[in-house]
Amino acid sequence: MPETSPRPDHPSAPARRVGIIGAGQLARMMLGPAIELGLTAPVLATDPAESAAAVAAQVRLGRHDDEQAVRDLAAEVEVITFDHEHVPASVLEGIERDGATAVRPGPAALIHAQDKLIMREKLSSLGHPCPRWWRITSVQDLVTALAESGGRIVVKTPRGGYDAHGVRIVDDAEQAADWLSEHGELLAEELVPFTRELSAQVARRPGGEAIAYPVVQSVQKDGVCYEVVAPAPGLDAADQQRIQGLALAIAEDLDVTGMLAVELFETAEGEVLVNELAMRPHNTGHWSMDGAVTGQFEQHLRAVADIPLGSTAPLAPAAVMVNLLGGAAEDLAPGARAALAADPDVKLHLYGKSVRPGRKIGHVTLIGEDPEDLLARAHRAERLIIDGPDVPVGPTTPGETR
Amino acid sequence: MPETSPRPDHPSAPARRVGIIGAGQLARMMLGPAIELGLTAPVLATDPAESAAAVAAQVRLGRHDDEQAVRDLAAEVEVITFDHEHVPASVLEGIERDGATAVRPGPAALIHAQDKLIMREKLSSLGHPCPRWWRITSVQDLVTALAESGGRIVVKTPRGGYDAHGVRIVDDAEQAADWLSEHGELLAEELVPFTRELSAQVARRPGGEAIAYPVVQSVQKDGVCYEVVAPAPGLDAADQQRIQGLALAIAEDLDVTGMLAVELFETAEGEVLVNELAMRPHNTGHWSMDGAVTGQFEQHLRAVADIPLGSTAPLAPAAVMVNLLGGAAEDLAPGARAALAADPDVKLHLYGKSVRPGRKIGHVTLIGEDPEDLLARAHRAERLIIDGPDVPVGPTTPGETR
Repeated sequence: MPETSPRPDHPSAPARRVGIIGAGQLARMMLGPAIELGLTAPVLATDPAESAAAVAAQVRLGRHDDEQAVRDLAAEVEVITFDHEHVPASVLEGIERDGATAVRPGPAALIHAQDKLIMREKLSSLGHPCPRWWRITSVQDLVTALAESGGRIVVKTPRGGYDAHGVRIVDDAEQAADWLSEHGELLAEELVPFTRELSAQVARRPGGEAIAYPVVQSVQKDGVCYEVVAPAPGLDAADQQRIQGLALAIAEDLDVTGMLAVELFETAEGEVLVNELAMRPHNTGHWSMDGAVTGQFEQHLRAVADIPLGSTAPLAPAAVMVNLLGGAAEDLAPGARAALAADPDVKLHLYGKSVRPGRKIGHVTLIGEDPEDLLARAHRAERLIIDGPDVPVGPTTPGETR
Repeated sequence: MPETSPRPDHPSAPARRVGIIGAGQLARMMLGPAIELGLTAPVLATDPAESAAAVAAQVRLGRHDDEQAVRDLAAEVEVITFDHEHVPASVLEGIERDGATAVRPGPAALIHAQDKLIMREKLSSLGHPCPRWWRITSVQDLVTALAESGGRIVVKTPRGGYDAHGVRIVDDAEQAADWLSEHGELLAEELVPFTRELSAQVARRPGGEAIAYPVVQSVQKDGVCYEVVAPAPGLDAADQQRIQGLALAIAEDLDVTGMLAVELFETAEGEVLVNELAMRPHNTGHWSMDGAVTGQFEQHLRAVADIPLGSTAPLAPAAVMVNLLGGAAEDLAPGARAALAADPDVKLHLYGKSVRPGRKIGHVTLIGEDPEDLLARAHRAERLIIDGPDVPVGPTTPGETR
């Protein structure tokens, strides 16, 4: 069973109106659960054709970095929450100071998902396991970091990165000099010789109630989440609990409200190191929509609206998720039809986005007994959908990237 | 495993736009699955505050019996389907004749859910098991039916009934004379000495692909569906298959597309008799939203949009559903919060409707091992929500009506 903190009986009223800043697929996938919970969920979109804007009952047009646009949305709801972490802290601090609308997660927590240097400093000061890291403010710092880490480092822009953006592996200080002059400071990290990536998700309410999901294994493809297996194969109950405990501790230490994803490196010694934090539903949690009693999108809404959290118990011994990344087919419908005809257990989630190579345009999930079997079937569905039904599907190896 | 017909590979294209006539809770609960499937689903509502209209991205205002309003919705989609069965057949026949928009289920099928006399005639001619019944066009017919059935009959208006409306038990012809002059003809049926009510749901695509859900047990309260257990306790595999086969046969015989619910009486001898038909998602199938691989709302959309059907396999040995019928609490949020705090496995579905006594305003589901335990917990949640959190919840007997 996932680890759970006590369920406190604290006095604040649950929200009925939750505004969502941003209208990507994460906002989109909150809309169904919002309907079932009886919540009103207007979204702030920059374009009426965005993934969530196309299907939301209430859409406000405006940018997430336009203070007035964010304030206007906040004025019509009790809580605002996020599709992404790019809203400026100053905007959120102003809304929080005014006190009329709750910001969840709050800006003091969210900064750790916005700024990787602040995240590293905070986690290190709390004693949570991180890769070795260096604050880089000069070329000399880069040279030092390279020397101390065996000649190769990962350099990251502290802000604005996502998926593979804002990350470089360098073996010469010159290779990051342009970023240094552009950003002023950078984060450097050792290259962790990890054996695989894990993700630990927890949900936490304002009063402190928190609950962990099973720890999952994730596989990236070109820096983008591609494949998830829940629970992580071969992780015994003690390790599951230890890692869940780490994620719950981080949520509490940073006072997160909503969903928190802790992306982790697992080393050959079975140690885990924190890679990234995300304070919203996360790609590594999409399996839970079809594979857990409470999906992460419902759970995020419950957490930020201050509604008691739901069970994170899995519905089957194994669940898998495979992302649909834009491929040859511009129209996904014929391939989707073929995939669903071939396998009535496949659960399909389309984001209503136009197809561009490598773009996240949807995902499929499957639940069952054997993760290898589920992955093979999920990849078969993936290929039918993104290549179209007329491209022959060969045998597929789980975890294979093409 | 549920019985399945072969998956034919027929040539029509799947629809991307499905218009829903009517904006009650059944339309509302289609919206989340429509988002995930990437379908556009405008609803025709008589009032913007209706259950589905309040949360749909696209709402057209108009009455379901206004031919122009129905035609206008049909003109912007590839398929129309229904929240209820009250659209006049003449309107649907016209749209079908024009051929630009598919009507699913079609009017030739839907008539059997609209007119109980036509349904009885058809099922009897096909040899499907029905209670004894009489077409009543005169007081003398009532007298005859009463005499032939031991002095007591059920009288139904052929059209327009729902829940407890349009049904009377009479032991004297005079008790139905007013209806007879009002409606011209009535349906009379024997009072079946049933031991319980069952419901068999199937989904069927235009090309004939069909799949059955587990047969469930339902309990009414004042003529309204109140409590469902899936699968029906004590029904062995052979009986499950026999009854699923009956429902699949009816779907094929009547050329139903979409979800079909066959409400049944089970007698002490283990015989089943068809009570009513519904050609849409049905209250007895709400458990499947949280208790089956493919919920009935997603399945209905897949069937009418001609997308291959999904697995109906249950996610746990037992699932229960209890309706929330309007009670003392006008504001459901405090009780809902208490119910979710008390039981993190409870799945809540609110319809966004104002509270009136006995009105269907939501439902809860639970999945697990033991139906008795699940029912007790579902009723505890129900009482907290509809009475409010300040009314003490006593011990509850499964199936008990209060």
